[in-house]
Amino acid sequence: MTGEIISVGTELLMGMIVNTDAQYLANELNKYGFNLYHQSTVGDNMNRLVEAIETAMDRCDLLILSGGLGPTEDDLTKEAVAKYLGLPMVQDEQAVKDLNAYMAQRGKTITPNNYRQAEFPAGAHILRNSCGTAPGCVCETGGKLIAVLPGPPHELKAMFESGLAPLLEERMDSKFCSRYIRVVGMGESAVEYEIKDIIDAQTNPTIAPYASVGEMCLRVTAAVGKDEDPDALVEPVVQKICERLGDYVYSTHGVTLPRVVEDLLKQQQKTISVAESLSGGQICSDLVEIPGTSEVLLEGAVLYTDEAKIRLGVSQETIERFSAVSEQTAREMAEAMRRRSGSSIAVATTGVAGPGPDAGGHPQGLFYVGVADEQGSVACEFRARGSRVRVRSTAVLYALDCVRRRLLGKL
Amino acid sequence: MTGEIISVGTELLMGMIVNTDAQYLANELNKYGFNLYHQSTVGDNMNRLVEAIETAMDRCDLLILSGGLGPTEDDLTKEAVAKYLGLPMVQDEQAVKDLNAYMAQRGKTITPNNYRQAEFPAGAHILRNSCGTAPGCVCETGGKLIAVLPGPPHELKAMFESGLAPLLEERMDSKFCSRYIRVVGMGESAVEYEIKDIIDAQTNPTIAPYASVGEMCLRVTAAVGKDEDPDALVEPVVQKICERLGDYVYSTHGVTLPRVVEDLLKQQQKTISVAESLSGGQICSDLVEIPGTSEVLLEGAVLYTDEAKIRLGVSQETIERFSAVSEQTAREMAEAMRRRSGSSIAVATTGVAGPGPDAGGHPQGLFYVGVADEQGSVACEFRARGSRVRVRSTAVLYALDCVRRRLLGKL
Repeated sequence: MTGEIISVGTELLMGMIVNTDAQYLANELNKYGFNLYHQSTVGDNMNRLVEAIETAMDRCDLLILSGGLGPTEDDLTKEAVAKYLGLPMVQDEQAVKDLNAYMAQRGKTITPNNYRQAEFPAGAHILRNSCGTAPGCVCETGGKLIAVLPGPPHELKAMFESGLAPLLEERMDSKFCSRYIRVVGMGESAVEYEIKDIIDAQTNPTIAPYASVGEMCLRVTAAVGKDEDPDALVEPVVQKICERLGDYVYSTHGVTLPRVVEDLLKQQQKTISVAESLSGGQICSDLVEIPGTSEVLLEGAVLYTDEAKIRLGVSQETIERFSAVSEQTAREMAEAMRRRSGSSIAVATTGVAGPGPDAGGHPQGLFYVGVADEQGSVACEFRARGSRVRVRSTAVLYALDCVRRRLLGKL
Repeated sequence: MTGEIISVGTELLMGMIVNTDAQYLANELNKYGFNLYHQSTVGDNMNRLVEAIETAMDRCDLLILSGGLGPTEDDLTKEAVAKYLGLPMVQDEQAVKDLNAYMAQRGKTITPNNYRQAEFPAGAHILRNSCGTAPGCVCETGGKLIAVLPGPPHELKAMFESGLAPLLEERMDSKFCSRYIRVVGMGESAVEYEIKDIIDAQTNPTIAPYASVGEMCLRVTAAVGKDEDPDALVEPVVQKICERLGDYVYSTHGVTLPRVVEDLLKQQQKTISVAESLSGGQICSDLVEIPGTSEVLLEGAVLYTDEAKIRLGVSQETIERFSAVSEQTAREMAEAMRRRSGSSIAVATTGVAGPGPDAGGHPQGLFYVGVADEQGSVACEFRARGSRVRVRSTAVLYALDCVRRRLLGKL
C-alpha cells in the first residue's frame, strides 16, 4: 500500500517553521508498512490544494494532510477535501459541544468563525482533538482514505496515535509493534557493519537505523496477524542485535540515556553530583529535564576556570603538572564534587571544545570523564570529532554513559 | 518570479531525518523575493525524479533540487536533470582535480565511483563545494534555472551563499539586504499587535516574524538596485520597530541572547557566576556554547535540592519561611553565588518546571530570577506557560535577559 503526505501552510512554504510533522508521519507510515514515494507542501490556497489532492489520490491508497484546520478564512484543508470529493461541508453536533466546552473551560469567547472548526465533509469520520480546538477527520473514497490532521506537532501526534493509528490497524488486518534499541559510543557505520547481515536478512521485522550526534537508534518493527503476538517476532531480533552490540546498547525500549542513568540510580538508591568543565552544565540540565530529578541529583558545579576547579578541591599542583585537560584533573574534580555534595557517585568532564586546540596544545575534541564513588575513582579519555557543539554533545552522552557503566559494574 | 524546491532522498521520505534544507532554502528564496507555491520530496528514483522536475518546471522560474549528489548508484539528481534537459553527462576537469586533491589531503583512496561526483549535465555552471566532495551545478533552460545543491545542511548552506546567491543577485538586477531584530519577554501576538501597521504598510523592506519559545525574531529585508545602498531602506524601519518595542529588543543584528550578555560583560570588564535550580545548568551551558566564555564565566552551580542551596549560603530560615520558590530565595542564591565566586554579577533561578504544582502548591510555570551585583540584589517573578521543557527554556532566556537589563542599568 502506498501512503502520501501533504503538509499545508504558507508558514511552511516560506520557511518560517521546519516541517517536523512530515518526518513524524513518514516515520509512522513507514512503520505501518506503507510505501512512500512523494511528499509535498502547499500553501493555504484552494486551487493549489485541490490540485495537490488530485495528484496524490491518483497514486496513493492513504493520503494524510496536516495543517490548515484553524478557525480563520486562510484555513482551507477540510474544504479542499470536500471540494475534491464533491461533498458539502456539514456541522458535527458533538464537535460543536466539544468546542463550546473547551472554550468555556478556558473562559474564552466563541466567535462565529470558531464554528468552522466543527464543520467536516459530509460523512467524514471525525477524530477528536485531545490537545486543542481543531478536530481532524477521515474520509473514504473508492477504498482509499484521506485523513486530515492538525498542524501543531503535539496535536498531530496525539490524534495520529489515538485516532488514526487504530483505524489503520483495523483496515490493515495486521498489528504492528516497534522496539527502539538505543546505542551510545559506537559510530553509525560501525553499528551497521556489525549487524549488516541481520538487517539484510530481515523482512519481518524490519530494521531501520536513525543516527544522531554521538548515539544512534535502531527501530525494529514487526507486522503480525490480528491474533498473533508481535513480540514473538521482535524479541529474538532485538536479542540478536544486543548480543552483537553488547554494552553499547543502553536501552531496548527507546529510553533516553539521562533517564536510564536516573532509573539505575533510583533502583540502586544512589545519588549523584556533577562537576562540569567542557560540558558546562549540560549534563545537569539533561538530568533535570526528567521530572523527579531532585531525588537523585544532589548538586552540580560548572567549573570553567582553573580557579573554580581549585575552589572545589582540585589541587593546584595537579593542574600545574598535568594541566586542566587531563585524567588526573577529571578524577580530582569527580572526587572533590563527591566530597562536597556527599553523593554516592560523582561525574566530571574536562576537555577542549574548540574551535582549535587549547593554550596547552591539546587538540579540539579531546576530553576526559572522571567518575568517583565509594570504590574510588577512574577517568576515561575520549576524542570527539566535529564542531564545538558536537564535541560538547558527545561529552555529555559519554559522561552519562560512564556513569551507566560504573553503576552496572562495567567501568 | 516563482521558486520551487525539490528535496531528494529516501531517508527524507522515510522520516529518518527532518528536512531542514527545505526550510533554509524557502527562507532564502523568500528573502530574494521569490514566490513559493509548492515544495516536494521524492526518493532516489529516476522516473519519479524526472517527473517531479517536469511538473515543477512547468510552474516555476527557479527550481532548486537538494540531495542525491553522493558517489553511489542511488544518487541520481544530476542525471535526472540531464535526462529532463535531454543532455549528456560530461566530466569536468576542474572538479576531478578538486576531488583528487580533497581525497589525497585526507589520505583516502578514490574509487571509480567517486568520479561520478565530477560529472554534470553538459554546459552546466559548476558550483564548488567548500565543505565536501560533491560539487553542485546550475543549468539554464528557456530563461529558467535549475540548481542542484548537496544534501548535508552545512554544505548546502555554504554553496548557496557563495555560489548560488551571487548568481541569483546577478540575474535579478537587484541587491538584497536583511537585518534580524531579536525580541525577548514579549509574546508573538503582542509584538505583531505593536507593529501591525508597520508590517502592513511595508512592501520594501518586507518584515517577516519568526517565533520560538520565549522569544521571537523579525526579519527585515530590502531589495534595492545594484548601485543603491540597501541600508538606507532597512535602517529606518529597524529604528521604527525598535522605538515601538523598546527594551524588549536585545539585538538588531541577529545576535543570540547569551552572546549579547557575554559581549556586555566583556565591554564592561565584568565577570558572572550562575546559581541554577529550575534551569538546572542550562544557563551556564548556553553561555559556554560561545567560544571564549572562560573570560567572563567564573563559576556555576546547580542547586536542585534545598540542602545544596543551603550549602551555597542560602539561609535555612529563608527557605523555611518563604520556601525555595520565592523572591527571597532567588536573591539569596544570587548573593551567595557572587560571594563564593567573587564575580561582578551573579544570576539565580528557582521555580516550578512541572508537570503540575510543587509540594508547596506553587503552580507550574511560576519562577523567580535573582540578580546580585555590587549595588545589591533584586528578584523578578515570572509565569511561563506550557510543558516542563518550555518552562525551563523560558526561564533560561528570562534570566539572561535580567542580566542584560541589569548590565544596561534598566533593572
